Amino acid sequence: MITHMDRDKLFALLDAFAVELPSWGFADTGTRFGKFLQPAAASTIEEKIADAGTVHQYTGCCPRVAVHVLWDFSMGVDATATADLAAKHGIRIGAVNPNFFEDQVYKFGSVCNPDESVREHAHRHMMDSIAIAKAVKSDTISLWFADGTNYPGQDEIASRKGRMHGALRQWHDALAPGMKMLIEYKPFDPAFYHTDITDWGMAYVFAKDAGRKAKVLVDTGHHLPGQNIEHIVAFLIDEEMLGGFHFNDRKYADDDLTFGSIDPYAAFRTFCEIRNAAEAGKDVSGIAYMVDQSHNLKPKVEAMIQTVVMAQELYAKACLVDRGKLRDAQARTNTIDAEECLKSAFFTDVKALLAEWRKGKSLEADPLGAYRVSGYEARVAREREAVRAARGGTSSTSYA
Amino acid sequence: MITHMDRDKLFALLDAFAVELPSWGFADTGTRFGKFLQPAAASTIEEKIADAGTVHQYTGCCPRVAVHVLWDFSMGVDATATADLAAKHGIRIGAVNPNFFEDQVYKFGSVCNPDESVREHAHRHMMDSIAIAKAVKSDTISLWFADGTNYPGQDEIASRKGRMHGALRQWHDALAPGMKMLIEYKPFDPAFYHTDITDWGMAYVFAKDAGRKAKVLVDTGHHLPGQNIEHIVAFLIDEEMLGGFHFNDRKYADDDLTFGSIDPYAAFRTFCEIRNAAEAGKDVSGIAYMVDQSHNLKPKVEAMIQTVVMAQELYAKACLVDRGKLRDAQARTNTIDAEECLKSAFFTDVKALLAEWRKGKSLEADPLGAYRVSGYEARVAREREAVRAARGGTSSTSYA
Amino acid sequence: MITHMDRDKLFALLDAFAVELPSWGFADTGTRFGKFLQPAAASTIEEKIADAGTVHQYTGCCPRVAVHVLWDFSMGVDATATADLAAKHGIRIGAVNPNFFEDQVYKFGSVCNPDESVREHAHRHMMDSIAIAKAVKSDTISLWFADGTNYPGQDEIASRKGRMHGALRQWHDALAPGMKMLIEYKPFDPAFYHTDITDWGMAYVFAKDAGRKAKVLVDTGHHLPGQNIEHIVAFLIDEEMLGGFHFNDRKYADDDLTFGSIDPYAAFRTFCEIRNAAEAGKDVSGIAYMVDQSHNLKPKVEAMIQTVVMAQELYAKACLVDRGKLRDAQARTNTIDAEECLKSAFFTDVKALLAEWRKGKSLEADPLGAYRVSGYEARVAREREAVRAARGGTSSTSYA
Amino acid sequence: MITHMDRDKLFALLDAFAVELPSWGFADTGTRFGKFLQPAAASTIEEKIADAGTVHQYTGCCPRVAVHVLWDFSMGVDATATADLAAKHGIRIGAVNPNFFEDQVYKFGSVCNPDESVREHAHRHMMDSIAIAKAVKSDTISLWFADGTNYPGQDEIASRKGRMHGALRQWHDALAPGMKMLIEYKPFDPAFYHTDITDWGMAYVFAKDAGRKAKVLVDTGHHLPGQNIEHIVAFLIDEEMLGGFHFNDRKYADDDLTFGSIDPYAAFRTFCEIRNAAEAGKDVSGIAYMVDQSHNLKPKVEAMIQTVVMAQELYAKACLVDRGKLRDAQARTNTIDAEECLKSAFFTDVKALLAEWRKGKSLEADPLGAYRVSGYEARVAREREAVRAARGGTSSTSYA
Repeated sequence: MITHMDRDKLFALLDAFAVELPSWGFADTGTRFGKFLQPAAASTIEEKIADAGTVHQYTGCCPRVAVHVLWDFSMGVDATATADLAAKHGIRIGAVNPNFFEDQVYKFGSVCNPDESVREHAHRHMMDSIAIAKAVKSDTISLWFADGTNYPGQDEIASRKGRMHGALRQWHDALAPGMKMLIEYKPFDPAFYHTDITDWGMAYVFAKDAGRKAKVLVDTGHHLPGQNIEHIVAFLIDEEMLGGFHFNDRKYADDDLTFGSIDPYAAFRTFCEIRNAAEAGKDVSGIAYMVDQSHNLKPKVEAMIQTVVMAQELYAKACLVDRGKLRDAQARTNTIDAEECLKSAFFTDVKALLAEWRKGKSLEADPLGAYRVSGYEARVAREREAVRAARGGTSSTSYA
Repeated sequence: MITHMDRDKLFALLDAFAVELPSWGFADTGTRFGKFLQPAAASTIEEKIADAGTVHQYTGCCPRVAVHVLWDFSMGVDATATADLAAKHGIRIGAVNPNFFEDQVYKFGSVCNPDESVREHAHRHMMDSIAIAKAVKSDTISLWFADGTNYPGQDEIASRKGRMHGALRQWHDALAPGMKMLIEYKPFDPAFYHTDITDWGMAYVFAKDAGRKAKVLVDTGHHLPGQNIEHIVAFLIDEEMLGGFHFNDRKYADDDLTFGSIDPYAAFRTFCEIRNAAEAGKDVSGIAYMVDQSHNLKPKVEAMIQTVVMAQELYAKACLVDRGKLRDAQARTNTIDAEECLKSAFFTDVKALLAEWRKGKSLEADPLGAYRVSGYEARVAREREAVRAARGGTSSTSYA
Repeated sequence: MITHMDRDKLFALLDAFAVELPSWGFADTGTRFGKFLQPAAASTIEEKIADAGTVHQYTGCCPRVAVHVLWDFSMGVDATATADLAAKHGIRIGAVNPNFFEDQVYKFGSVCNPDESVREHAHRHMMDSIAIAKAVKSDTISLWFADGTNYPGQDEIASRKGRMHGALRQWHDALAPGMKMLIEYKPFDPAFYHTDITDWGMAYVFAKDAGRKAKVLVDTGHHLPGQNIEHIVAFLIDEEMLGGFHFNDRKYADDDLTFGSIDPYAAFRTFCEIRNAAEAGKDVSGIAYMVDQSHNLKPKVEAMIQTVVMAQELYAKACLVDRGKLRDAQARTNTIDAEECLKSAFFTDVKALLAEWRKGKSLEADPLGAYRVSGYEARVAREREAVRAARGGTSSTSYA
Repeated sequence: MITHMDRDKLFALLDAFAVELPSWGFADTGTRFGKFLQPAAASTIEEKIADAGTVHQYTGCCPRVAVHVLWDFSMGVDATATADLAAKHGIRIGAVNPNFFEDQVYKFGSVCNPDESVREHAHRHMMDSIAIAKAVKSDTISLWFADGTNYPGQDEIASRKGRMHGALRQWHDALAPGMKMLIEYKPFDPAFYHTDITDWGMAYVFAKDAGRKAKVLVDTGHHLPGQNIEHIVAFLIDEEMLGGFHFNDRKYADDDLTFGSIDPYAAFRTFCEIRNAAEAGKDVSGIAYMVDQSHNLKPKVEAMIQTVVMAQELYAKACLVDRGKLRDAQARTNTIDAEECLKSAFFTDVKALLAEWRKGKSLEADPLGAYRVSGYEARVAREREAVRAARGGTSSTSYA
């Protein structure tokens, strides 16, 4: 089946393919129409890290968990304790995500707010976030801004752009050596007229202007209908400006569905562009693969295992593309043959290969099945319900 | 300026143009990323009715307020008291909106849920809602279902369709004589793979099947990008199936922005189709004009006054279209002349005309200005904050 | 691999799965920016039928070719000759497609045109088309209207609706017994403000009104961004109103790309809904599977073989869905398990199964490879170029 | 009505507001479904220039006509004759548009084509275009590429990016001093999988890389659904990278409708951003306002006059925005007041002001009415039909 690629090479590529989990993906979350609570949902950073560690335990490819400053860290608490906790669960802290949207002062924006005191507030939060990153030994600050306006005229777009530039330059220079700053874009939601960083082009310009430690973060759900995401990915890699991904899938807007659940071929094509670049000699080792999903219906840990397995499978399929054949078809401008190179790899059944790879790592062949057998969910549901009952409340940590 | 239409005729049309306000539009609301609280936001049905009455007081064209069963009525409380309260504020209760999405049992749907006990739960809520409608002397039940699925395969689409048919037929037959049942559609959100009533076509088929009291409700924000809403409106009127509107505006998805704030020409064209139908002898008197907006940034009452004034202005412009000239241009297939008939009416300044109409009703010429001068917002902010403080909480009623 | 389904059952389903080819898909075509001519492109109905017969020869599942009245039939020529020609090539004539958009008189529409003489012109063309259908023993008239407007006000939408109703009712009654009339919808292009039959809902209403011989035709490229096509398909089957498909794929608008080339999972899900309905006892035998693609870049016959093979593979995958398991997962509201039923079937490699099916039909295992070896394209290119040179022109038949 | 702005200031702004017409906008054009021929359509560059001159004669604000190298210039003909012809009609030659899509060699792209000889062909055409620009004393080359792919895998995206960079750098350096090169982007059509310059971000990166004479060209119809065009405009001005516009309007895709015909408020907001920038001290004098429309239904010259008048009116409305009031509202984060500043200007009736401005230029108050009275269309229709009859053909020049 995979005659053109050495199994060892594929396994080496899989060894290097790590997916970072979001701490907030284990908490109860929902839509603006409400959230459906799960007994096993994590409420504390301890619970989230335990869940992330569990996913890593069954998949073997999720050594890091991204954290969200506002929800995961309390002022005055030593962040290094969180790093130790992660280590205890066999993982490390990944990207540190400041929060610039939930505080009431951010009603008209954070760094783009016309009110200087609000911008100052955001600045202090960023400085705290950098300090936390240092404490947990993370090298990545991941920035997403809800900044924007809902109505024409609400604020001056160009002035807001200037404020964004100012903040990002200043923050870039405050990073420790070796740290990087990822800048995410999004076309709309929660801003519905204009969003200050609305597309990859704006994220690119802001990052270029801020400095060499700034790169663009591509959230696969943050695009207008039809946008060709793999094209953006190829373009950014060529510009050496792709910092990483937030993986999820969508059919309409920022739907936060499981990666590959709606259009797996598109997800595969994104991996193909990365592999193309790698085969062409580009350094793609710095690209961060992070999940950003909030499941309202699926059990959290199960959904995360499903996501990671899907990502691995699609990545493996992309590795299996016969690039010699593909380049040959492209050189002959034979569209059908070129296309069939992709499709043939995409429809290759890689489940057995991945089972074998897992075996080599002393992992169970079927991560989801093994996890279900473990009884983890029922156990933590009991424990967490008890804790919540003792606290007299319901699950608390929210995300969007 | 308005040579082809008698001022008296325009004023008579304006007299008949009533806009229904949503009780939930006066409460604190937000996006899934959080809500920005307003001191003057209404928390109780009393406060919401007071706010709605205030909007009517300044605009003179909002004699009804739509209510939301789950948020506005408590079990065991006599609903007629709410009707009396409305009367005290110079308005009446309009459409009654059951809630089929917030309860935890609705995780996998309400009437389309595979679990019969959940469908039964929804049924009881509908029966309660009909009872409330009778008690408050409302003749309209307005139905919106969040039912749908997030993932391919999650449930069987055709079975869900059958369950929807069953519920709607049964409910239709449970309506009191003279009542009507409006069926709303929405392409997505909060369901992200399929929504059981996803477009006007499905709402139409369900309504036709349910019976003569069922009509389609068009929410102007519930369409895919590009969809021609006025075409749907004209089509439904011709089929005698248009029950009414939920007014709002949007740029991307269901953004819940102020009506006419993003694309006023499109809103105007919807009114044009209604006027076209009326001039062609269709009965459009039963079409309900209702606002469905949730303002996260704007002060609630101000935003509602702005909305209503915008709706009146756009409606007046649509009344002013010179239909004789238009029909003549259409008969000559002179696209430019036909288009200019619409544009000329659209760009006619109707502010003076509306000021005059208001004068005739003993209303202030500038509703928003007059409202601001009144000091209403500051006063209720103080009062409501005090009440909330006494209750020991923050504003509570939520909506999406 | 396919433990839950008997191989014989799958093969029987494949035996019954026939894909109808479009005669115009073998002619030179392009975009509004021009067309790239191919030496082997078919110019005459004889050449188109030869090409269609060739595709059937290699795939074994394309026994019919749809024809286009304006491009394929000359006035005064006996249409039965065309049927005989098809028989000679081992195929039959399928759907007959009248043309209501290319004549200069259709500038402002065909059946919706305000000018009665134009509507009369369209009527005569339809009567000719029915006569042709009878002559070629086709039982299907397939209707697509470019009717619509480009500008607000250009024509009265409701009047146009009335004209459409009138034409369709009259035409319906003019059909021979046993004939059916398929009504296609499209959101835009070439009309850019409103299209008279813009979505499935309108096609449904027009078809219902016309009579029992009228059904809805779903062209997979004729939807707004995000629209869930398989939902529409399931809905129409449940209403017994799905007449058939025009297969193609798209990323943006009506891109006319190869079926399954952009989003194969979506195409698979459409087949899943058909199989679901069939397993639930619905009669799906009357649904026509037709290709409607116009290839600007790919060699015509190769592209058609690729299309048909893709359709067969995706259909086979849909047949392989373990419906017992799926229904069980749905009953448990286990979204992940339900989803995995679909994905597991989708990623099943069916190439070997199809090769075996072909062997049973004395077909080559690899239709595209075998066709290429045959030298057909080079041969007809020489012949057709010679004919064109003799005629002193370039390839002529156009389509959009 | 316009108390905050001196009438002289407005008139000075209108004096400086010039709209460039496209030569191809006077020729017969259509959609891929065919074109509807007009007797008065221009076939030759002489006829196109006469039409453009006529539009300028009635509107007084269209002193330049953009030309299209392939359709307007014959090899071996002296281009200066064309410049002289324009002068005779009271106008000058504006942007020179090379054609990189119509030649059969461009099947797989022009400058991004994997075939070096095709790229060489494109290069020679560009050098010819620069020579023509010099000959006609134009300082602008306007570049639009149809380059892209239709299918995943068809060609390597990153390699194509490299080829585009190479061409643009080389061409930039071949420009005469004082010339500029505008780079247009488009999301799709005629390429349906990926387009090599798909959005403003890519045009920006290519332009930056090419050199200081390269700027971005914004075609208002070349965006994905929902994209906020005025945001892009504000962003590009701030980056000093906005070269100009192609004006048109659209509802769905690249519909090529009359500017302001579908969403006039959006067009107005684009002008607002330009005026905002100007008031903030940015130099916006170099921004080229060009029309790019192809009318299939409307009479060409009439449609162009309508377009230009609409552009003038919307621009005048944008000039009338009370920026002092707006900035004040923005500083108070009073969204409603800020919004009303825009709406108030938008709904100001400027027809009388423009009539007065025209009077000052010795122009007729109603350009379209005056043009119709002139009998120009009937006259040139007779003449051009006679010429075409003599040539034995139908109208010839095509565009997309």
